[in-house]
Amino acid sequence: MAEKIAITGAGLVGSLLGVYLAKRNFDVSIYERRPDARKTQLAGGRSINLALSDRGLEALARVGLADKVLREMAIPMYRRVMHDQEGNLTYQPYGKDGQAINSVSRSGLNALLMDQAEEHGVEIHFEQACAEVDFEQPALHFENVLSGEKSTVKPHRIFGADGAFSAVRGALQKTDRFSYSQHYIEHGYKELTIPPAKDGGFLMEKNALHIWPRGNYMLIALPNPDGSFTCTLFFPYEGDPSFSSLDSTEKARSFFKEQFADALALMSDFDQEWEENPNSSLVIIRCYPWTKNGKVALIGDASHAIVPFYGQGMNSGFEDCLVFDQLLEKHGTNWEPLFEEYQQLRKPDGDAIADLAMRNFVEMRDLTGDADFLLQKKIEARFAEKYPERWTPLYSLVTFSAQTRYSEAQALGQKQDEVMAQIMAMPNIHEKWDSAEVETKMLELIPEQGFSA
Amino acid sequence: MAEKIAITGAGLVGSLLGVYLAKRNFDVSIYERRPDARKTQLAGGRSINLALSDRGLEALARVGLADKVLREMAIPMYRRVMHDQEGNLTYQPYGKDGQAINSVSRSGLNALLMDQAEEHGVEIHFEQACAEVDFEQPALHFENVLSGEKSTVKPHRIFGADGAFSAVRGALQKTDRFSYSQHYIEHGYKELTIPPAKDGGFLMEKNALHIWPRGNYMLIALPNPDGSFTCTLFFPYEGDPSFSSLDSTEKARSFFKEQFADALALMSDFDQEWEENPNSSLVIIRCYPWTKNGKVALIGDASHAIVPFYGQGMNSGFEDCLVFDQLLEKHGTNWEPLFEEYQQLRKPDGDAIADLAMRNFVEMRDLTGDADFLLQKKIEARFAEKYPERWTPLYSLVTFSAQTRYSEAQALGQKQDEVMAQIMAMPNIHEKWDSAEVETKMLELIPEQGFSA
Repeated sequence: MAEKIAITGAGLVGSLLGVYLAKRNFDVSIYERRPDARKTQLAGGRSINLALSDRGLEALARVGLADKVLREMAIPMYRRVMHDQEGNLTYQPYGKDGQAINSVSRSGLNALLMDQAEEHGVEIHFEQACAEVDFEQPALHFENVLSGEKSTVKPHRIFGADGAFSAVRGALQKTDRFSYSQHYIEHGYKELTIPPAKDGGFLMEKNALHIWPRGNYMLIALPNPDGSFTCTLFFPYEGDPSFSSLDSTEKARSFFKEQFADALALMSDFDQEWEENPNSSLVIIRCYPWTKNGKVALIGDASHAIVPFYGQGMNSGFEDCLVFDQLLEKHGTNWEPLFEEYQQLRKPDGDAIADLAMRNFVEMRDLTGDADFLLQKKIEARFAEKYPERWTPLYSLVTFSAQTRYSEAQALGQKQDEVMAQIMAMPNIHEKWDSAEVETKMLELIPEQGFSA
Repeated sequence: MAEKIAITGAGLVGSLLGVYLAKRNFDVSIYERRPDARKTQLAGGRSINLALSDRGLEALARVGLADKVLREMAIPMYRRVMHDQEGNLTYQPYGKDGQAINSVSRSGLNALLMDQAEEHGVEIHFEQACAEVDFEQPALHFENVLSGEKSTVKPHRIFGADGAFSAVRGALQKTDRFSYSQHYIEHGYKELTIPPAKDGGFLMEKNALHIWPRGNYMLIALPNPDGSFTCTLFFPYEGDPSFSSLDSTEKARSFFKEQFADALALMSDFDQEWEENPNSSLVIIRCYPWTKNGKVALIGDASHAIVPFYGQGMNSGFEDCLVFDQLLEKHGTNWEPLFEEYQQLRKPDGDAIADLAMRNFVEMRDLTGDADFLLQKKIEARFAEKYPERWTPLYSLVTFSAQTRYSEAQALGQKQDEVMAQIMAMPNIHEKWDSAEVETKMLELIPEQGFSA
């Protein structure tokens, strides 16, 4: 008889994990606190679109879904378009020709994954809030959020895929020797909209991620299939300027006029959206261990919630599923060693992408407006193109190199930083950046095996 | 009419805070989850004795209790006595002549403080588990742990003094933008006993803290008034040796015979205690903010639980009370600015002592057996004696200098480290440590204003 598996959370990771486990013939049920988002409007507080890239696509491909997702709902973004205060644009390709990250709708992708899970026989139970976890049995105690009715399920294994505010992790937090941290960064975000053009087209370059880098804060915009862009202002809660200091819509509007005039000109609902859309907080969650008694495991945001600046939140969660599935192949249902290897393998990668994502925030909001930084990226890109076996840019290691672990990418990135610090310190580097001298020096500084994927 | 104040937790800090606030004529009630420890035996899992030092004594003195505590229940410990594997002893004074830290019984001191609180009109309600906190009203919802009876209190202010596993902080953790971490260190501890001599005297030097430093682990012993010593083994959970590797009493006994022969010879109940006494974990807790809405505040371990290696857990919590009382004097019942200044003032000090306590673990378990380290301490002590206005040793800054904030002590300690690294790097320092050359070099390296309290 197939082992019974209960997953808490029918979000992106819970649903994909459901597909994976159902395909391996487990008897899978998913329990979700919210109503079925396919039938109702989602509550606010979560980003509308996401950047799907190679790691996520690999995980989708393993269950035959990558092409479908790319075909049906993705808008490829080939480059960053930086907007300065005067509205002048500069460009930075994400990778090599044809490499792109993909803007996808969170709710659309989630609905597709829930449909897929159900097609594979997964039962999804909605409006079931996890109230308690028994780590011995194991068992999950639920309360129906509408009726208050209580119920208990006793599966063989439990997966907490219930996100950054995971109830399963909350229960683990009360067990001895469970290390845990939730760190809210100084910045929060607010979503705003650039609507489609009258003819349904896009009012800015469609196949790009737009950034208005402004030092300590930034605005970004991702395209949606309906021709609109979802803009997100990442902004401090306190200080000047901040959500606190912009305490009226007039102040916000005049601030946008000064800083983001070209974007504001396209936001027809700015006033209403500024007033009605929430300021949402950004949290980094770390914990360990991720598994308990060989019976319960955390996955996705429940084990490692990160900030969104590398576009890797969903991708890292999908990669968790893929790695878990590879380990299932290796260990079969020897759960204890499987869980142990899973957490030992994935914890350093979760930590690495958490750090990289914070680092990318600084890069996006501050450095993409910096001439030295842009030159450095140009030197790296030029060198990487000529010597791909010696150098893969960090962004590509993270985004386009699913075979390179996040922790490896981070380590390579640190070594690249050391090399580039020496290159950028060369006299007149802005003049001779594409000279043979620079190339020779880089070849000298980079070890034989290279810093590549 | 006096404002009503509810304190959760009748431990050391909650009880002392009760005394402070009652003396300022607030209407104070304390709610404690456990039964009245004055009437029953305390459950295990908490250390039996504690080191009371100047910061704690200052806080007790402010409400007239320092002399009473010193007189009735304290055993001064003037120095560290280090035991090597052969049982050879070396010595290190804690401070100047007459300076001591004081071994006091946790339960005795707690009982005294509860008595004092009640004498000042504080009502202590036992067996009341805090189930929920309303941060708006504010209100506390309790459940009687015996009867299950539920009750609600609606005080004007709430203080969470309910320790490392604070229920009030647990409720705060669920509010937006509350940063929190609980970090369990690799080591845990187990308590063992060296009983009194037949004549009721002490089997080792009474007025000392005994240490068996062994690199990655250590045993310590503090004297009790009945002639016994409470010994604590600080030991890794995993690895070799560890609580895991010593998986039988025989193995533990033979390990002690090898490592702590002189102590083992005095432990008449070793086998039984090894089997029955728990392995307890050690957690470091950090969070922020410590206050909410000008209505609720955390204090003591609830806001900053630390490891015990500097003997500052209780002392820092008592100092919280003292600082809070000074701010009450300054702000009156202007609670919002009072709470704001309290948390801004105490958070860096809580962080500093958390770091210092981990650092002192390394020092105690490892360096007190190291000739270079002991020499360095001797050089510092000699210099500090001659030039007290230029140098106060870090240990004294933390332990005997209540007027120096923990964060200042930490900053001074870092500067001292830099100086001492240069001194210890002088050729032949072991021969000429007490020479004029070394003294001159130190005078050169230390700025005019000195590194002193």
